[in-house]
Order: sequence, then C-alpha cells, then structure tokens
Amino acid sequence: MNKSIRELRLVAEASVLAIGLLMSSGANADDDLMRTAKQIFHPIPSVIPAVKDNPVTHEKVELGKLLFFDPRLSASEIISCNTCRNLGSGGVDAGPTSVGHGWKVGLRRAPTVYNAVFNAAQFWDGRAADLKAQATGPVQASAEMNATPDHVLDTLNSMATYVALFKNAFPNEARPVTFENFAKAIEAFEATLITPAAPFDQYLEGNTHALNDQQKSGLALFIEKGCSACHNGINIGGQAYFPFGMMKKPDASLLPAADKGRFAVTKAVGDEYVFRAAPLRNVALRAPYFHSGQVWSLKQAVALMSEIQLGAKLSDEEENDIVAFLNSLTGRVSKIEYPILPTRTNTTPKPSIDR
Amino acid sequence: MNKSIRELRLVAEASVLAIGLLMSSGANADDDLMRTAKQIFHPIPSVIPAVKDNPVTHEKVELGKLLFFDPRLSASEIISCNTCRNLGSGGVDAGPTSVGHGWKVGLRRAPTVYNAVFNAAQFWDGRAADLKAQATGPVQASAEMNATPDHVLDTLNSMATYVALFKNAFPNEARPVTFENFAKAIEAFEATLITPAAPFDQYLEGNTHALNDQQKSGLALFIEKGCSACHNGINIGGQAYFPFGMMKKPDASLLPAADKGRFAVTKAVGDEYVFRAAPLRNVALRAPYFHSGQVWSLKQAVALMSEIQLGAKLSDEEENDIVAFLNSLTGRVSKIEYPILPTRTNTTPKPSIDR
Repeated sequence: MNKSIRELRLVAEASVLAIGLLMSSGANADDDLMRTAKQIFHPIPSVIPAVKDNPVTHEKVELGKLLFFDPRLSASEIISCNTCRNLGSGGVDAGPTSVGHGWKVGLRRAPTVYNAVFNAAQFWDGRAADLKAQATGPVQASAEMNATPDHVLDTLNSMATYVALFKNAFPNEARPVTFENFAKAIEAFEATLITPAAPFDQYLEGNTHALNDQQKSGLALFIEKGCSACHNGINIGGQAYFPFGMMKKPDASLLPAADKGRFAVTKAVGDEYVFRAAPLRNVALRAPYFHSGQVWSLKQAVALMSEIQLGAKLSDEEENDIVAFLNSLTGRVSKIEYPILPTRTNTTPKPSIDR
Repeated sequence: MNKSIRELRLVAEASVLAIGLLMSSGANADDDLMRTAKQIFHPIPSVIPAVKDNPVTHEKVELGKLLFFDPRLSASEIISCNTCRNLGSGGVDAGPTSVGHGWKVGLRRAPTVYNAVFNAAQFWDGRAADLKAQATGPVQASAEMNATPDHVLDTLNSMATYVALFKNAFPNEARPVTFENFAKAIEAFEATLITPAAPFDQYLEGNTHALNDQQKSGLALFIEKGCSACHNGINIGGQAYFPFGMMKKPDASLLPAADKGRFAVTKAVGDEYVFRAAPLRNVALRAPYFHSGQVWSLKQAVALMSEIQLGAKLSDEEENDIVAFLNSLTGRVSKIEYPILPTRTNTTPKPSIDR
C-alpha cells in the first residue's frame, strides 16, 4: 500500500464526511449532501484563472491559439497540439493512445487539455509542473510532433505575422520569439479552455434541482464509497498521485509492466505504477479510459475503479447512479473560431516526414 | 501537342484579347485592361453558389461541417478532411504531397477545398465530376483516411446527434444516414468555402484602384503572355485540361513518370501527363506548387510555367509583376466556428491503426 500523507488525509476526510452523510436522513438528507459536496468539490470559476509567472493577456491567448492549431510546428508539419488534444472531442483524440510522427504509437492516453489549468501538475505522471512546462514536451517527443526548438523558432521567425504577434504578446522583450514564450502563449490559451456551468457546478452553487435524483444518489455513492478521496477539488481529480490498483492489481492490458508511471519522475520505489488521479470533468466525453486507454465504457471504468482501488463490488444500480453523476460533470465549451494561420514564406522550414 | 476543342478556343480567345490589349495605349490603357480582364475572368460571387442535384441548406452545411472536421470517420480516427484540406492554411496541408493512414505518402499535392465548387471537375485529373463525388474518395483511399463506407455509416449511426442531424438535413428520406448523403452534406459545406472580395474581384467589379500599378502590369502580362489561356474564369483555372509541359517537358522531379495524370481517367493516349489547370485563387497561400508539390516559391512557379507551357523566358521584372498580380487573388475567408463533435458511444467503431 503506497500512501502519501496527503493521500491519507484525503481518505480520512472523505471517510468523516461520508459517515456524516450516512447518518443523515429524511428531509435534511438533500441539504446534507449538498453541504458535504461543497466541502469536497469546487465549481469551475466563470473567469479565466490566473497562471503562475505568466499573466494571461488577450494578446498571448490569441497567439497561443494559433500555435495550438499550427501543424507546421511539428517536423512533418501535419501534427498540431489539436491533433491529439482535439478541442472538438473533449480535448482528446480517439485513443487508445496517441499516434504521432512516423505513425508511432504513444505509450499513454492523451490527457485532456480542457480544465488542465486546474491540475496540480501535468501529464499522467505529473512530470510537468505546469502547462508551460507541458507545452514543451509533445512538440519535441519523437513519437508525437518530433520537432526541435530550432524548427519551432525558425518556423515562427519566417513569418512576419508571427513575429509581430510575439511582440504584441511580450511587449517588454527585445527578442520575444523564444521557445519559452512559445510555451507561455500556449499556456495562456490553454488557461482559457475551461468548461464552467456543468449541472454539477450549478449544484455546488446552490441549485439543488441541477442534479436529478439518480445523479444525487450517484454523488452520495461517489463520496460514501471513497471515490472522492482521490477525485476531488475543482477538477474532481488531478491533484495527487495514487497507485493504479491500490487494492487489487489490474491485469497487464490495463497496467502494462513497462510503464511504471510516476516512478520515472521520482525514482522512488513507492511510486511504481503510481499515476495522477484522473480529473473527471467532462469524463463522459473522453472514452477510452485510464492511462492505457483500454476501457471504452464509462460504466465499466466505474466498476473497475471500485474493484481495484476500493476493493468493493458495486451493484448494477450503484454503477448506473455513479455514471449518471459523472454525466453531470459535462460543462460548457467556449466557442472557438478556427484560426487562419500566417502564410508560410520561402524561408519557412520544409516538412520532414522521415521516421 | 494535346489540345481539346475547348482548349483551342480558349487559347484563340485569349490571343485576340491580348492583341487588343497590346494595341491600346495612353489614357485608355487602364480601361482597356479592365474591359479585357472582365471578358476573361469573373469575380467570386458574394452568395453561396448553387450545386447540381444537391440544394444547399443550412442543415446540410452544419452537418457537412461536422463531417469535414470529424477524424473518427477515418480508420485510425485521427485523420479528418481538414487534416489535408486545412481551412486555416489555404485549404491545403503543408505538402509536398499528403501524408495519410500508416504514414503513407500520397502521390499528389492536395488541391485546395476553397472555391473548389467553381472547378469544372475535382482532383488534379478531374476524375470526380463534382464535390459530392470527390468527398467519397479520400475517406476510402488507403493512403489517406483508409475507411470503408460501413465504417463511416456505423460511426454515424452510433451517435444519436448525427442521426438527428441527417434527419434534419434530408427530411424527406426514411433512412437518411447513407454514404451518398454523407457526401452531399460535405459538398454543401464545401460550397460555402468561397473567398470573395479579393483585390482582383474588386477590380473586376469596376474599382480600378483595387490593383496597384505593378499588379495591373502583372495582369496585363498574365493575359498577353498566354497564362490566361488556361487560367481563366471565376477560379482563374480549374476549367480544362492541359499537358504539364506543352512546350518543354519538366524534369522527373516535377513530373514523375509513374503519374500519367488524366490518362488514368480517360485511357486516351493524348491525355498522358495531362492535368487540370490549377485554379489560382489564393495561390499565394498554397506553396508548394504543382501536382508534385516540389516548387516552394511562387516566383519560381511562374518562371517555370512560362518556360514549360509557353516556351518563354520572363524577365525578373515580369516575374515579379505576375507574382504581384497573383497576390491580388487572395480573398476573404469566412469565419468558421470550430465544431464540437457528437460524443462517441459504446457502439462507435474503435480506431484501427494497422497499416
């Protein structure tokens, strides 16, 4: 059993809350559930959250949006951030894991970019502290965009429109077209990709009718059974790390032996097969599930989590209720105008599709 | 020399017009140029053009937009129409030729989808009579989306939102989710992808100041030298077929021996290495050039065309003037809201990335 102090605290908190919840009954049960939920979860704010060391400005967001959608920043010039973090399908690709440069297949399911700004750290193993650190990864990964910082900067510098947009976004810098600013602009755009106003947000803000009875039952189960010990906060997850298989080890198709999760980051033996608790916002939009992307049904995912993380077998009704609750986590996606990219010039680097 | 009757007629017309143009001078030269241009070219209309056998309705356009952007219609579920006909970069990909399923490399440069509705036929060899016929090609091509009609229909039928959208778009059909209607909806969306209001359109509509002097000089050259014999009409091309290398055969890097162009469609010996004259609308946005996609500079493309099609060597100034004119063909792209796709269900076919 691998438990951090934080994890134990969360489990303990949830247990206390759950006991309180189970003791209540009758007319006050609804009020108690809402009160308990408000202590464990938080609604998505209706304003763009602040980002550490990177004030979010309109200029950065507009630039970051172009960068996010520009495939020419990859070596092949056909893969953009949006290829695997498709904003039209929950911020993820079709899965199970991403296909990138040279048709290479990635090791893990693409985590969603929506609401990623609320996660404590980025990637399944938390190896990037924030979205600007995250943004420098896939663009260079050989099985993803396979580019170099030089390719990115040469491409951006070859188009006067991009250079002007960097000057606007970073007005106090003499030479603003840098790989760091590329990442900061993407982070600023991604900070805008929040999905407020889900039924569950409305519930947390006091509207008891925002959830139906089945969803409330699912919410109560989600707390009582212990799911919320790991899946809590604004993002209903994304805050801390836990072994995948706390009570029972999943089979190798779900937990491939070669991917030891957070161990690769910390080298701590206790972090073998430890992953960041998946943020569950919009989870209904994002099958297949888990880092290996092998479970295509949300109900099956709920049953599996209960079995391997909590050591409990849920009834069919309980599974359905929890799925109904998870469906209440689907929020509202902002409208995004598809960007018209700056036009390449004679000095823009040519695509390279070599594997 | 392979010339159809239509082609000969176009060349003859252009010669007559060019002679008239050369004879005029002084104060009336500007008027004559505009009068001549109006006979050869036509502005892009400001309304969506009608499409044969497929009335364009809002419902079809909205559905077609979703289909155009939905990668789940490909076998791998990561390639959409928009992957190679990127609406953010002139309706084409980075080139030289498209990369598709299994990282296979296509034989020809992706032709642009913008203003394609004005072409007499689709593809470099005109093998599709219209955009609905065209839309059934790439989705099935093994080096492109590599899907089957069954995959497309199973995917669409697995999502109630899609089924409802087909019912709305084809209200008089009992079973509207068909491969033919899939193609018709895409055609309807693509018919909206027109780019009116280029400086040259404004010029053709009577505003002599819409082109600067260099652009007018380039326009005059474009007519006089004979470019407009093939590149004319609304789309400044896209209307008829001509040998690539009428006066001089290009080298094999530009004209690979294996790709005999329209010969594959007609099996007529005279159609060997014959291609549809490229439509030149927005050409400045669409490097690299020609069906083989090996020429990255528009000026180089102009010089090459003059040499191999007209047997003429242009001066540096003439090349620059024609390029300036071609830059006046860049029109206004409509704003496109990035579509939020219907959510996959447990019955949606899974991706297949096998090569």
